[in-house]
Amino acid sequence: MAKKGKTFIISGPSGVGKSTVLSALFQGRNDLYFSVSATTRAPRPGEKHGVDYHFIEPETFRQWIVDGEFLEYAEYVGNFYGTPKKYVDAAMEEGKDVILDIEIQGATQVHNLRPDVVRIFIAPPSWKELERRLTARGTDSPEKVQKRLLRAKVELQTADHYDYFVINDTVDNAVRELRAIMLAEHCRPADRIADLNQ
Amino acid sequence: MAKKGKTFIISGPSGVGKSTVLSALFQGRNDLYFSVSATTRAPRPGEKHGVDYHFIEPETFRQWIVDGEFLEYAEYVGNFYGTPKKYVDAAMEEGKDVILDIEIQGATQVHNLRPDVVRIFIAPPSWKELERRLTARGTDSPEKVQKRLLRAKVELQTADHYDYFVINDTVDNAVRELRAIMLAEHCRPADRIADLNQ
Repeated sequence: MAKKGKTFIISGPSGVGKSTVLSALFQGRNDLYFSVSATTRAPRPGEKHGVDYHFIEPETFRQWIVDGEFLEYAEYVGNFYGTPKKYVDAAMEEGKDVILDIEIQGATQVHNLRPDVVRIFIAPPSWKELERRLTARGTDSPEKVQKRLLRAKVELQTADHYDYFVINDTVDNAVRELRAIMLAEHCRPADRIADLNQ
Repeated sequence: MAKKGKTFIISGPSGVGKSTVLSALFQGRNDLYFSVSATTRAPRPGEKHGVDYHFIEPETFRQWIVDGEFLEYAEYVGNFYGTPKKYVDAAMEEGKDVILDIEIQGATQVHNLRPDVVRIFIAPPSWKELERRLTARGTDSPEKVQKRLLRAKVELQTADHYDYFVINDTVDNAVRELRAIMLAEHCRPADRIADLNQ
């Protein structure tokens, strides 16, 4: 029997270390697909079409919206960003699990469309540690750090309807929890009863 | 913060290899507690009080029913069997996860009382393989094997409301899935948001 992949949404506040966790998750795994967003903004130097983004014309983007080609989309400072269905569906058909790295609002859109997606929020071990990480990046003023911290607290309360909270205390632990969640979600009854009665 | 344990119900049809999987799951783990049932039946030679069963008087059993001391109980060929709450609760307070090895009807009783228990059904990789295992035990006539097989099929359909189906294709895989489910269930938002806001 050909096993179909599942879709996992991964969200998390600024500074929580989501990208590092995701790189570690993908290490040596070819049964995972990282969903690449489409955007109408121009490529920045070094960005590759199909790798960093699918760079498309505003007209194409609008047509894709009309045709229901997006799992979610949003406008941000004059540019559109969205998750095209087709690559996600193709990967799942190949049996790959799909990772969508999107914000809470996008996650809600996807979940309304496909209630079987699994939503995972990456949380810091403590607020103190998140503040330390934001400060250690050295990119933001103390005021900006406080703003990000407040936003993270609000975000986390908004994410209480997520299926899982993974604590990024260490990257290894976070990846271990993510892998456990993904395996557990492949143990849901519906698929397995169907397989057994084939 | 003191992490509280969770309760996992594990059910499965005759011949699926549940006991073998459970022994392997408990190997080297002192953070797990296997719930020992109470019964009114007499100990068989070699059975130990508190290990195989809590052997108690019928009068005590009736009193425990009246006092709401059971998570579930049932009568079987003239004897009572039940899961006392107190040992389960004590283990969870110590931070241990609790495993209840009970049938589907008992699982329903526990779930009605405590909707946060996680129900896991151990399923065979195929009906053919379950038949092979039942036959290989050499304890049942071919007719009895067919009866058990039919009962397993009915049981499995009744268990479609379980949270997870673990396939016992190999003991290692089944244990890997069980561990993943248990870890994943410790990543539920409610507990973790509470921890973070402490």
